Amino acid sequence: MSEKNESSRNAQTPQKNYRLKIQYDGTRYRGWEHQPDQETVQGKLETVLARMCDIPIEEIDLIGAGRTDAGVHARAMIASVRLSTEHTPDEIRDYLNRYLPDDIAVQNVDIASERFHARYNAKGKTYQYTIFNGPVHPVFNRKYYTAVENELNVDLMSAAAAHLIGEHDFKSFCGNSHMKKSTVRRIDSLTVHRSKGYIYITIQGTGFLQNMVRIIAGTLIEVGLGRLSPDALPGILEGKNRLLAGPTAPAKGLCLLKVDY
Amino acid sequence: MSEKNESSRNAQTPQKNYRLKIQYDGTRYRGWEHQPDQETVQGKLETVLARMCDIPIEEIDLIGAGRTDAGVHARAMIASVRLSTEHTPDEIRDYLNRYLPDDIAVQNVDIASERFHARYNAKGKTYQYTIFNGPVHPVFNRKYYTAVENELNVDLMSAAAAHLIGEHDFKSFCGNSHMKKSTVRRIDSLTVHRSKGYIYITIQGTGFLQNMVRIIAGTLIEVGLGRLSPDALPGILEGKNRLLAGPTAPAKGLCLLKVDY
Repeated sequence: MSEKNESSRNAQTPQKNYRLKIQYDGTRYRGWEHQPDQETVQGKLETVLARMCDIPIEEIDLIGAGRTDAGVHARAMIASVRLSTEHTPDEIRDYLNRYLPDDIAVQNVDIASERFHARYNAKGKTYQYTIFNGPVHPVFNRKYYTAVENELNVDLMSAAAAHLIGEHDFKSFCGNSHMKKSTVRRIDSLTVHRSKGYIYITIQGTGFLQNMVRIIAGTLIEVGLGRLSPDALPGILEGKNRLLAGPTAPAKGLCLLKVDY
Repeated sequence: MSEKNESSRNAQTPQKNYRLKIQYDGTRYRGWEHQPDQETVQGKLETVLARMCDIPIEEIDLIGAGRTDAGVHARAMIASVRLSTEHTPDEIRDYLNRYLPDDIAVQNVDIASERFHARYNAKGKTYQYTIFNGPVHPVFNRKYYTAVENELNVDLMSAAAAHLIGEHDFKSFCGNSHMKKSTVRRIDSLTVHRSKGYIYITIQGTGFLQNMVRIIAGTLIEVGLGRLSPDALPGILEGKNRLLAGPTAPAKGLCLLKVDY
């Protein structure tokens, strides 16, 4: 009875569409997308939103710009959600941050247009893969990079990366071997640069296949180690076979930097 | 018998004195100093050194430049230790890093002069206390700052800090109420500066009492919040009473930046 009353009370507040910018350390999560009996970032957010609106969690439909894998981080994930609440956007942000664990933080909440949809409206995403390339691993940010001890040749990695820019069938770089839909994607930008002891692979594109950025990173690491020639990349693309590309680099080095609308 | 044989074999390699530079995330340690049945940074290092030299841990005497409290971090702790080993300094570094947990990293190992003693020869230390001052807590470095939500006045904090520079009896800033020895210390430099959302309290001095930097940080936070006037600081020093100073700021915000020799 009490729940029903609450629901009808909340129903009097008209729904608005909100846009959330979210930062998270993915280390201990089974990725973004909610899954039964698993800790996920979406699950954590929906739990707190349901509590704030005093409605069952099933009635919260938080839409992320994309799904990140288990262990992958995000500096600025974008999500949209319709809510009936008297709270201002800043109050929603503060409420969420008060009840979320400290490895998830809502940076910003805005009222979005009625038609804004975080996934459908996303024009592109930028991911960064971070490699520490040196003999002694830095301690403080150790959950956010992959260590490669042997020196990587960044020029070779860049030459290999150049072959991936543009529209290609990335079937060889798709972690889902049962993928039925098109594996054609477009990479607008893919750079490899060294700064201090780190190597950053930054990739911008319209959409990414499952594990695609991590397989690209794993392949570029093979190139950087001299195990694979940059000239092999066109053949790997043409072969459309996951076994031709390098290993999937560890999730911890990957971060969703930005979503473009 | 076997242990005795090992010891006499190792005794054939003459001992050398080594200087280690160590970085650690103190989050899960009961501080630097070894304690029975507790995880400590010194304990971890001595365990691996004993293993490397194939001698009982009791025979390893690793001397740190100072003790850090439970939960306090270090960017560059310096330690000295005498070892009988055929390994080069870089091999010692790599051996340690291979067996140490990933929250401790030996940055560098050098052969030091016979008389070098990490504690007695330390001329000073620099600590930094990091405060995040804003509404939304950054996620990725969350173990290395203390969050203060209300805006802190850095000018007031700097004015208060100025009163602490120089030689004073810091009894009011000593966490050990049973301290029998002199509580006079000299602070050579103490600055407060804001950068982006953070406030950094950087303090350089010849030596520090137990919790002294954290009590100074806690007191400066009180000043920054307007709860305490900068002009109160001389009276707090003169009162020589721990109850006059502010609270002990959380350990997680504190980091040993540098040891001077």
